[in-house]
Amino acid sequence: MKQKDELYQSIEWRNGGLYIIDQTKLPAEESVIHLENAEQVWDAFRQLKVRGAPAIGITGAYGLYLGIRDFDGDAYSEFMKECRRLADYLNSSRPTAVNLSWALSYIMETLAGQEAKPLLELKQKILKTAISIHDEDRRLCKTIGENGVELVPNGANILTHCNTGGLATGQYGTAFSVIFHAHQQGKVKQVWVDETRPLLQGARLTTWELQKASIQHSLIVDSAAGFLMSRGKVDMVITGADRITKNGDTANKIGTYMLSVLAKEHGIPFYVAAPYSTLDMDLDNGSQIEIELRDEKEVTAFNHQKSSPEGTKAYNPAFDITPHQNISAIITEKGIIYPEFEKNIQEVFKTPRE
Amino acid sequence: MKQKDELYQSIEWRNGGLYIIDQTKLPAEESVIHLENAEQVWDAFRQLKVRGAPAIGITGAYGLYLGIRDFDGDAYSEFMKECRRLADYLNSSRPTAVNLSWALSYIMETLAGQEAKPLLELKQKILKTAISIHDEDRRLCKTIGENGVELVPNGANILTHCNTGGLATGQYGTAFSVIFHAHQQGKVKQVWVDETRPLLQGARLTTWELQKASIQHSLIVDSAAGFLMSRGKVDMVITGADRITKNGDTANKIGTYMLSVLAKEHGIPFYVAAPYSTLDMDLDNGSQIEIELRDEKEVTAFNHQKSSPEGTKAYNPAFDITPHQNISAIITEKGIIYPEFEKNIQEVFKTPRE
Repeated sequence: MKQKDELYQSIEWRNGGLYIIDQTKLPAEESVIHLENAEQVWDAFRQLKVRGAPAIGITGAYGLYLGIRDFDGDAYSEFMKECRRLADYLNSSRPTAVNLSWALSYIMETLAGQEAKPLLELKQKILKTAISIHDEDRRLCKTIGENGVELVPNGANILTHCNTGGLATGQYGTAFSVIFHAHQQGKVKQVWVDETRPLLQGARLTTWELQKASIQHSLIVDSAAGFLMSRGKVDMVITGADRITKNGDTANKIGTYMLSVLAKEHGIPFYVAAPYSTLDMDLDNGSQIEIELRDEKEVTAFNHQKSSPEGTKAYNPAFDITPHQNISAIITEKGIIYPEFEKNIQEVFKTPRE
Repeated sequence: MKQKDELYQSIEWRNGGLYIIDQTKLPAEESVIHLENAEQVWDAFRQLKVRGAPAIGITGAYGLYLGIRDFDGDAYSEFMKECRRLADYLNSSRPTAVNLSWALSYIMETLAGQEAKPLLELKQKILKTAISIHDEDRRLCKTIGENGVELVPNGANILTHCNTGGLATGQYGTAFSVIFHAHQQGKVKQVWVDETRPLLQGARLTTWELQKASIQHSLIVDSAAGFLMSRGKVDMVITGADRITKNGDTANKIGTYMLSVLAKEHGIPFYVAAPYSTLDMDLDNGSQIEIELRDEKEVTAFNHQKSSPEGTKAYNPAFDITPHQNISAIITEKGIIYPEFEKNIQEVFKTPRE
């Protein structure tokens, strides 16, 4: 068993090979698979064996290297053509995954104008860039966690929603990283895990991550959060974020807004943990964020088993918006941002990116 | 297809026989089964083919008649002994079902001191009492529905939780009866149905009932209620109640409290519909209601399919308490009770029972 301070990684580059935890097998089975070429990486994305925006970006970067590693031409132009083909190919597996296209474009930029370099050196450059993207994500998630620890009281009962751990990132995660680092300092009494319907990321993945980290936890149905708060069983709520606008309004998994209202009602602090890159300075407020409506089958069935009568219609918004007024603080790798968010987020953006 | 104003019944006595909708087959299949003797009734309770407190009471009353119908002795004392044995036997199937023991005791009382009557007449008396218990429940549910209609605005988008319809009662149900009668007057635009984890009574049963009544509806995950309210898509919330204390505090399915907080936050009326008999005048307030903790397997699995890692602990409170401050009105067969509940509930109790 790994030591507590060496949290598992869902993606590992070792002995010249890429190894990932197959998330489709969780929680029933913890299966690490070896991806040997770009086709297997494409397939892993398509089948959701790897999921979570940062994790997809990291894996895609390694995937480009795996695809070009055995390129045996010697012309730079041919090499670049093949790299572009591979990047387009990998991108095609999850076309809306922003981190994937970002990582692949970033690598392509590092290769531009390098005609003079031997191709072997360029191949090594791709691998080094992939490793640095991976390292940077790990470092960033660790820093988010370390920054958030001061907000966690001793003996904390923490409620969290959806999955924000290492499965979706290089390591540590976002909200999960705060919980993990607070746990290392002995501050966490127990974590309440919302099961997070409809896709049950809490029940399937967050419980698994907490189990791996030996952190005490209990699973609850999403609608039990209010009852727990009313009985004084929750000291703080912490979630991740999909997007945060200029004024602090936060889009996150459906149910997050409900938790923020309940936390406010009970005077419980509500924290959001997310990397700086989640801040979208092009949007003034949450009303400008479009809410993705997903397949109604996610609600009318579970694991392909129908839970409602034939012909039942469902309404399935994937996200909701938590207004900044309901948020006590936003925890980023650049530090904790407190209200007034509009002003303080601007301040963070003035500091040069590390 | 039945007419809209002739809502289906989950229990029917016709042509000298007892017919029920087998709720274990819902929603996949609408199966009406004929119960021919007390053993089959016992079995239907045990297997949850009939569920819902009023429905169990009604079916149990018919069950006593089915058990004694063919009694061929001629001594009153033997007859009464057999009735008592049957009542104890039926009670043993669901020992905590208050309506069942109430219905059986009520029938036994009507038989006391009737030595002079022919046994055939006493058998008929049992059947008549069963029919009257059934009729009374139907009448009461209908009246709750009719009383509540005035609270429903035209073009209403109504959100409801759990199952409160005819499946659990003689006919019409409680909160469902209000929706049904408002629909008959053309007031209902659409019903949002919370799926109601962990046992999915909303997804499995309420959708089925709304489909039968041709009322427009959409299923949602429980945690989407807040988002819908924030977008102005909910005009009122209505739920049933398991118990209401002297001051109006209400115990109901887990998640009800959360809805009441969200409704308050958005200025949306929150109504409770329940028969007068749900008012427990022995309890001053909700803190005196014990909350049943149920099997964690209901949470760690979804429709009998495991949804979390082996060894995951869950916390599974079956009910929560909605404080009277969050309730806009309580709809009973005796009329609508508004705040101040403490005073106005007392008033209702002063009026003699009809």
